[in-house]
Amino acid sequence: MKRNTISIVLVCLLFLGLTGQYPALSSETESGQPPRPNFIVIFADDLGYGDLGVFGHPTIKTPHLDKMAFEGQKWTNFYVAAPVCTPSRAGLLTGRLPVRSGMCSDKKRVLFPDSNGGLPQTEITIAEALKQSGYYTAAIGKWHLGHKSPYLPTDHGFDSYFGIPYSNDMDKVEKTSHFTLAENERYQAYNVPLMRDKEIIERPADQRTITKRYTEEAVSKIKDLKDGPFFIYLAHSLPHIPLFRSKEFKDTSLAGFYGDVIEEIDWSVGRILKTLTEEGVAENTLVVFTSDNGPWHIFKTHGGSAGLLRGAKGGTFEGGMREPTVFWWPGHIKTGVVTDMGTTMDLLPAFCKLSGTNLPEDRVYDGYDISPLILGTGKSERDVVFYYRGQQVYAVRKGDYKAHFIIQNEYRTQTAHPVTDPMLEIPDSPTVLKEPILYNVNVDPGEKFNIAGEHPEVIAEIREVLKKHLAGVEPVENQLEK
Amino acid sequence: MKRNTISIVLVCLLFLGLTGQYPALSSETESGQPPRPNFIVIFADDLGYGDLGVFGHPTIKTPHLDKMAFEGQKWTNFYVAAPVCTPSRAGLLTGRLPVRSGMCSDKKRVLFPDSNGGLPQTEITIAEALKQSGYYTAAIGKWHLGHKSPYLPTDHGFDSYFGIPYSNDMDKVEKTSHFTLAENERYQAYNVPLMRDKEIIERPADQRTITKRYTEEAVSKIKDLKDGPFFIYLAHSLPHIPLFRSKEFKDTSLAGFYGDVIEEIDWSVGRILKTLTEEGVAENTLVVFTSDNGPWHIFKTHGGSAGLLRGAKGGTFEGGMREPTVFWWPGHIKTGVVTDMGTTMDLLPAFCKLSGTNLPEDRVYDGYDISPLILGTGKSERDVVFYYRGQQVYAVRKGDYKAHFIIQNEYRTQTAHPVTDPMLEIPDSPTVLKEPILYNVNVDPGEKFNIAGEHPEVIAEIREVLKKHLAGVEPVENQLEK
Repeated sequence: MKRNTISIVLVCLLFLGLTGQYPALSSETESGQPPRPNFIVIFADDLGYGDLGVFGHPTIKTPHLDKMAFEGQKWTNFYVAAPVCTPSRAGLLTGRLPVRSGMCSDKKRVLFPDSNGGLPQTEITIAEALKQSGYYTAAIGKWHLGHKSPYLPTDHGFDSYFGIPYSNDMDKVEKTSHFTLAENERYQAYNVPLMRDKEIIERPADQRTITKRYTEEAVSKIKDLKDGPFFIYLAHSLPHIPLFRSKEFKDTSLAGFYGDVIEEIDWSVGRILKTLTEEGVAENTLVVFTSDNGPWHIFKTHGGSAGLLRGAKGGTFEGGMREPTVFWWPGHIKTGVVTDMGTTMDLLPAFCKLSGTNLPEDRVYDGYDISPLILGTGKSERDVVFYYRGQQVYAVRKGDYKAHFIIQNEYRTQTAHPVTDPMLEIPDSPTVLKEPILYNVNVDPGEKFNIAGEHPEVIAEIREVLKKHLAGVEPVENQLEK
Repeated sequence: MKRNTISIVLVCLLFLGLTGQYPALSSETESGQPPRPNFIVIFADDLGYGDLGVFGHPTIKTPHLDKMAFEGQKWTNFYVAAPVCTPSRAGLLTGRLPVRSGMCSDKKRVLFPDSNGGLPQTEITIAEALKQSGYYTAAIGKWHLGHKSPYLPTDHGFDSYFGIPYSNDMDKVEKTSHFTLAENERYQAYNVPLMRDKEIIERPADQRTITKRYTEEAVSKIKDLKDGPFFIYLAHSLPHIPLFRSKEFKDTSLAGFYGDVIEEIDWSVGRILKTLTEEGVAENTLVVFTSDNGPWHIFKTHGGSAGLLRGAKGGTFEGGMREPTVFWWPGHIKTGVVTDMGTTMDLLPAFCKLSGTNLPEDRVYDGYDISPLILGTGKSERDVVFYYRGQQVYAVRKGDYKAHFIIQNEYRTQTAHPVTDPMLEIPDSPTVLKEPILYNVNVDPGEKFNIAGEHPEVIAEIREVLKKHLAGVEPVENQLEK
């Protein structure tokens, strides 16, 4: 605990020292300034680009998210920092590529129960940043950035935590398969702990009610903190397999078990937005909904769909890293579809901007302030997305164009029903392409038509961008291999 | 002309004789009855299931259709009668499978400029049905049900016609390729006639302005006919290739040429809905937007996307026959997403019901009245969809389940860039499967996971449905082979 306190003090000093400005600690408006908004990030796990009604799914009914998109913004080119859990979450919370914090690895793709590492204390999370501006901060749900101190949410600027510290399929009891057990016994096959702050309060976590309990925790926080400002990070542990749903959602979706799970998450979103409205803070709360990576195609219909996008979780085709994203902020947001590029790493700079918090200047940020796009006052400076797989950049998007330099089949774990790629023979191990592949992903979002031969100048330009980027990445201690 | 007049009189007598009721000829309300609504059907050509924003496309911007869906109904399980132009249109206008009118063929898939056949006079179109109830009827756009008398729109109950009589890629001037010509010269490579009623008024039709001109014709009709009731059938000739767009839409879409074309159609939809509102008839007009079949994948980025659905135009996987469909009727429609099955053949029975027109009883209808779904008062009786390719039933859907009995690669014309199927080796010629393939298309809309082995009873049940259906189909003269 002492070590954490020191860290927090150091972070505070960092802000003071580097910004030369001590952010106000209350939510009251300064003259001429809009009040600092509350922020809620709702982060699904392994949800596919095509899994919401408003993103094209025919039978998963998501009326609350559909309405949220219509009243707010539907982002159609919104990316994550990595195509798997741990590095994706590190990117969101720090505004930096996970390679900068040591939170990605070519050897171990995520943290496991036997991992000793986690998000370093030297990183500044959104929670730590906003706390400097007087925000109350709550983490709810899946963490997966280290389950030992000093890596837990309350070590990283969150005032409270309620959730599971890693993936819901970990701590598996041996020789059981979640498909062979009755639903009421199945959650016991995963000895995942449920924690409050740093204490384990239930083990195994009863995952059948977990979405509901996360939601009630969020609702309770909103009610308690409505005088604001607050930041709630609600990271659902579903629809990551094994799937669970409350009894109210059992066999209610046309789309089967997976549909039940998404429809419960949609219910949860509706409940949260309704609470914000009822508590009178809707117009002072920016809500962001997205997912940590694309759908996981290993258990047939228990995995989602990337819609018209190619690829899935684990890979660097669009389906692995482009997420169904909705922003909502009644009375402030410029409503409509946003086709500009954005990433989860852009949330930290945007939240800092909107809350009047200065960004520390001692580190590289990969996020760009997207608040002008949210408010409709301008553009962001983002013109590039790097598609990392582990510690390597496999692909780079600049503007309309995306070049693949390294490819690897994201389906390699899918032994139950291997899927060959219709367009391209994709190797099982990372393969550096002699001739990069180029797509115009705005014209050809499904990445079908390689136009590398027609645009050598674009490839050359992207190579330069990549070279410059790699020159700015400094080696750090790897946290996933500890 | 005389022959047509006789036909119309016969149709009138048929209605009188079979229904025992002479429908009122004005739009005035009877006691306790709502006024007869106007009907507008907007029918795109080769638009894919995934090509609208609200159906999941990331970069084709369709704000008017998105808003129309949010204010009205988004139908996600809406089908056409066939996966190609001519039979699909015959199905929509007659409420009957094209096999009943001789409008499909295993030898010639559609009508061509050298065809002598067309929709038989014995068929009763929506226009003919509604005329009995005093509707003014207008056809605008692509017809493709016979370009010689007595097969033209004004031979089939439409009071007026403005459009091209068959596909926009026909009458091709020899040895030209639409990709090698400058855009301003390209339309001249297709000597397609533009007609008003039965006269050719322009040849080649200037397709660069065709969407705009269809739209202005529709707007003009709405203004002229606002005292109603009216039925307007607006069948866009795009985005069927070769693609064209007005200069206002040139290079305006992020999604390229194809995006420009769809965004102009979306503009057209917005213009029509705005006109209805301005003229004060929006609340008395049911507008339906859909497409004739799935996207045509023969010219790379000049073809659309079926989104998460498998397959494309020409085939009997979902992507060939499930269409992005929106219903709009302010103040009357039950808003939301409709996942119930519907087809274009259901429009005739629904329009008859809503206008108080009785259906003739001397023929089989394959359409079911979907007005209870539109109004939110109940369900339709539809539980089955037959997937015809030419004169053969390739697949049958009953409830959640779809069984494929015959398969054939829809990509066989795609010689420029053949696409092999990732899940299934699909033969180039029609092949009767020894073991039918079964999908639950609500749980697995992408038709990935064959569950035939788990549900032999479903296959048996569907076989019975098919057997019964085929026993009720009587041979008629083939119109496409004439």
